[in-house]
Amino acid sequence: MEHILTPKVEEVKLLDRYTAKKPAIGTLYLTATHLIFVETSCNTRKETWMLHHLIATVEKLPLTAMGCPLHISCKNFHVAHFVISSERDCQNVHQSLVRLSQPVEELYAFLYNPKQDEDERRNGWGFIDSAMDFKRMGLPNEFWEMTDLNKNYELCSTYHSELGIPKTASKGTVFGSAKFRSRGRIPTLSYYHKESNAAICRCSQPLSGLSARCVEDEEMLQAISRANPKSTFMYVVDTRPKLNAMANRAAGKGYENEDNYSNIRFQFVGIENIHVMRNSLQKLLEVCAMKSPTMSDYLTGLENSGWLRHIKAVMDAGVFLAKAVAEDKASVLVHCSDGWDRTAQVCSLASILLDPFYRTIKGLMVLIEKEWISMGHKFTQRCGHVDGDPKEVSPVFTQFIECVWNLMEQYPCGFEYNEKYLLEIHNHVYSCQFGNFIGNCQREREEMRLYERTFSVWPFLWENRHQYRNPLHKCSLGKEVLRPSTLPLNFKFWCGMYNHFDKGMQPKQSILDHLLTITQKKAEGEKKMTDLQRLAVMDGVLADQGSPTGTPPEQTSLSPVSVSHTDENAKPLMNGAAVEEAEIELVPTAGSEKMEPVGTVVSMEIKDVRGGTKFL
Amino acid sequence: MEHILTPKVEEVKLLDRYTAKKPAIGTLYLTATHLIFVETSCNTRKETWMLHHLIATVEKLPLTAMGCPLHISCKNFHVAHFVISSERDCQNVHQSLVRLSQPVEELYAFLYNPKQDEDERRNGWGFIDSAMDFKRMGLPNEFWEMTDLNKNYELCSTYHSELGIPKTASKGTVFGSAKFRSRGRIPTLSYYHKESNAAICRCSQPLSGLSARCVEDEEMLQAISRANPKSTFMYVVDTRPKLNAMANRAAGKGYENEDNYSNIRFQFVGIENIHVMRNSLQKLLEVCAMKSPTMSDYLTGLENSGWLRHIKAVMDAGVFLAKAVAEDKASVLVHCSDGWDRTAQVCSLASILLDPFYRTIKGLMVLIEKEWISMGHKFTQRCGHVDGDPKEVSPVFTQFIECVWNLMEQYPCGFEYNEKYLLEIHNHVYSCQFGNFIGNCQREREEMRLYERTFSVWPFLWENRHQYRNPLHKCSLGKEVLRPSTLPLNFKFWCGMYNHFDKGMQPKQSILDHLLTITQKKAEGEKKMTDLQRLAVMDGVLADQGSPTGTPPEQTSLSPVSVSHTDENAKPLMNGAAVEEAEIELVPTAGSEKMEPVGTVVSMEIKDVRGGTKFL
Repeated sequence: MEHILTPKVEEVKLLDRYTAKKPAIGTLYLTATHLIFVETSCNTRKETWMLHHLIATVEKLPLTAMGCPLHISCKNFHVAHFVISSERDCQNVHQSLVRLSQPVEELYAFLYNPKQDEDERRNGWGFIDSAMDFKRMGLPNEFWEMTDLNKNYELCSTYHSELGIPKTASKGTVFGSAKFRSRGRIPTLSYYHKESNAAICRCSQPLSGLSARCVEDEEMLQAISRANPKSTFMYVVDTRPKLNAMANRAAGKGYENEDNYSNIRFQFVGIENIHVMRNSLQKLLEVCAMKSPTMSDYLTGLENSGWLRHIKAVMDAGVFLAKAVAEDKASVLVHCSDGWDRTAQVCSLASILLDPFYRTIKGLMVLIEKEWISMGHKFTQRCGHVDGDPKEVSPVFTQFIECVWNLMEQYPCGFEYNEKYLLEIHNHVYSCQFGNFIGNCQREREEMRLYERTFSVWPFLWENRHQYRNPLHKCSLGKEVLRPSTLPLNFKFWCGMYNHFDKGMQPKQSILDHLLTITQKKAEGEKKMTDLQRLAVMDGVLADQGSPTGTPPEQTSLSPVSVSHTDENAKPLMNGAAVEEAEIELVPTAGSEKMEPVGTVVSMEIKDVRGGTKFL
Repeated sequence: MEHILTPKVEEVKLLDRYTAKKPAIGTLYLTATHLIFVETSCNTRKETWMLHHLIATVEKLPLTAMGCPLHISCKNFHVAHFVISSERDCQNVHQSLVRLSQPVEELYAFLYNPKQDEDERRNGWGFIDSAMDFKRMGLPNEFWEMTDLNKNYELCSTYHSELGIPKTASKGTVFGSAKFRSRGRIPTLSYYHKESNAAICRCSQPLSGLSARCVEDEEMLQAISRANPKSTFMYVVDTRPKLNAMANRAAGKGYENEDNYSNIRFQFVGIENIHVMRNSLQKLLEVCAMKSPTMSDYLTGLENSGWLRHIKAVMDAGVFLAKAVAEDKASVLVHCSDGWDRTAQVCSLASILLDPFYRTIKGLMVLIEKEWISMGHKFTQRCGHVDGDPKEVSPVFTQFIECVWNLMEQYPCGFEYNEKYLLEIHNHVYSCQFGNFIGNCQREREEMRLYERTFSVWPFLWENRHQYRNPLHKCSLGKEVLRPSTLPLNFKFWCGMYNHFDKGMQPKQSILDHLLTITQKKAEGEKKMTDLQRLAVMDGVLADQGSPTGTPPEQTSLSPVSVSHTDENAKPLMNGAAVEEAEIELVPTAGSEKMEPVGTVVSMEIKDVRGGTKFL
């Protein structure tokens, strides 16, 4: 705790970025893990918690008449503008935060201890198993099998140890192909579409240079193509802009030559690289940070950032893949350069479009585990978990989550989960509270002994799933392949992600929170009815199984909204009040072990959800 | 009927603007009042109805390999692209529509006959009475009274005959002030805020020129100011850009000089004039018409159109007024040039922000009746109901409705009505099916004997109110003054208005339709429970008034959603299926008397709401 120069500062102002409203006044505490601002200017106790590790930048501005401004920006796009009366205090807080936000010793996950015993911890890591998902898809079957050729990470150091490959691909083919692919990232199964036998496979770019060929790689693609016997061709999708792919040829890399591979249809889809995306996000955040933008500032800024254009490009690619599989019934092989950024985005997006399972709370966990964690998306570098090359940081996962949110906006009844779930996952990707998103690949995570030293986020999210449920979810709708429109007007600026916690923003009345309450009341009503029916039957006033009021049988149930989707979801929803409480208590519960706020943080009595701002 | 050259054309294609999907094939009928397209290429009968009067432009394009394209754009922004095999048929349809869409003889309202007897018709016109609303606000009271000084329209030819004025304003003051205001549109009461005694008054610009004064007008403003004794000042808001107002001075018009009026605070709010708005809409529609816009095309086009900037300007002005009244507790006098466009927009918007009544289905009717119809918004000219000066056409009412929609987006539980209600009112403003929006002022409507010759739209909408209900409406929220954020990012492109009927658009799963179903099921459930409880009580298994399952008393009711808001709303909601049916049947029911489709239109079996496109 030697980094905490001033553990408590009083009379701190929390400014509102947009409005001229009076700032909140309160006390700022620095703990080992969190900055906590406790508002004292209101009757109910309002707390704002910011995890040190989530802090991206902390800036001390020159002294003003009001005091000394301290601007904090978080990796999950939350922003706080404090003003501290004494410049010295501000200096101390600034200096402490600069140190605390850098993991000098260990990431938060290694400190975090939610009072679980060893068994619970270990079971937690088994809660989501991507191998199980291949079983769910029907593997092994006559065309595909799971192989442990990569068990020692000798085939590919950044892939999972278990890989799905076509049955007809020999060991020689697989190892030969690995030599012809960047970093050995061979074509491997991402998603198998039972209905059509078509598959989505993913890999890195071929080392084709200007004219190099590789028989095994050609065989590998043939094996994938043959595994879908009804189709006469397969797509090979390079998610990069053509120019980028061509530039790679000079470095001995590149893309597939249609002449060398039999029956492939090659296609670029033009998603920009991590550097373009990083800069685009930066510009977007500048737009969000404008104090009083005019409509023109906003729209021009949004356009100039290119952000929505990139989101649309990712979505377009995902739609292309899903259409190829569901409509053309053709398999698709997807790659970008290394096959861990754009490839992860579009494969997982296509899976969501194709398979309703990934539109459930558990399904999204499985998908992220499978396409991002197992397949070596470099979370440590992309999220900048530890000090490293800033050019490796890029909002690749954020874009994927934003695409899912856009889908949810188009299909408000199609997803079991809600916006809060996406934001919570996104928060945890950056928070490093759990071990899942630490490390760049499976091998690294094993080397770090993350499974022994940290906890998994999935059981934690599952525990709180009542908060993440979309009360509008209709299972019946879930069966369809989603065919979203990718017209520009269907992409919206995501307030919930980029401007959610600004106090000046109108607090959006939460339709979904409201509906959760309704759903709960409905469940209660049903219980009451069942009880009454039982009573009535018991006393003979009602025939057993009868429809008491003569309504048609299909109206006997009060449940047009799917409350439970799969058998795991049997737990009833909590009522509205409880949900709000749980929402606020989430952080202190999670962090309560290691977090020892200076001053006594009494049990929170936050009645205003807005007030209890959660920065995680 | 002499205008119908070809009453029926077969094998007509209805194209999808955006997607490459196969066009719908069907038969096109021309009736005296509607164009009807009956799709024959699908199993269920899908019909598209377009009221001739709603057609803004009809364009015949050069013959292509597919046939002869016919593009129809409606005043309510619906668009249809037909392709007719024979050029001659296309020519005939085009020629017929050009004639039919111009009210050669009479507007549709004079033909429309919904089988009501004379009493019903007359009662219908009494359904909404703006004078009653002044009573609701507490008039007459010690400060304000209703006067019939304008009973023969001698004071002001474009105002209603009954006007609210301050009690202390003498007849001489009123008539003197009228001489000093454009077209005699004196300051008169728009909204009286009981809680603060502050009032919103409206008028036209003063004839102040460069230095003219008028004692009576100064007295009139003083009288308004005195009617709010607790405030030491009043605001005078000129909704025009300052430059426009200054230009008017040269023509002997202009704005109030703060030196001549005691204790006024003068303010410009900068809403552009009808010509700027017309051009802006034109540009917006061009963006909507783009076939495959890139994200950049879309965002740049949206920005260049200026449309959202104008919507924000109107909203900002409304918020300024509401804040003045609710927070500063000061009265406000509002004008633009003639006080019938921008003034109507901002006064009605401020009323909605201040008073929950206007956020109910009936309240919005009252508001439109009061601020738009009674106070002389020139519907005939602004909507271009009859051939006239195209420079008089402007989407002033559309902008008001769009502002309300934006408020609904920010307050999804704050309004009793839903988007469909706004769109339906907007449709009827342009359809001329009812008499309400015909004519430019009360006097004109009396001269046209509209109350004897046409029907009122309000009872018709009231009859169908179950369709327009927002199932999320919470009365408790309704009590607050709304304080929307007017940050640019809170203004969205309104798909429902401008792109709603494009088939290529993803049919948005309607949350609200879904909820209407839930609400209905809930009502059924409640009924069933009551029945069961009655049975149980009857048989002595349950104590009378007891809480059967031990849940707390406040949970006995299943109703967190307000189903009925005012006593008039006692009619239960229809279930989802019925709602959809009603939605489709709305038009044929309304138009069934005069509309005699060539060919037999059998009872419609439209199961797909998308299919049964309603162009009204």
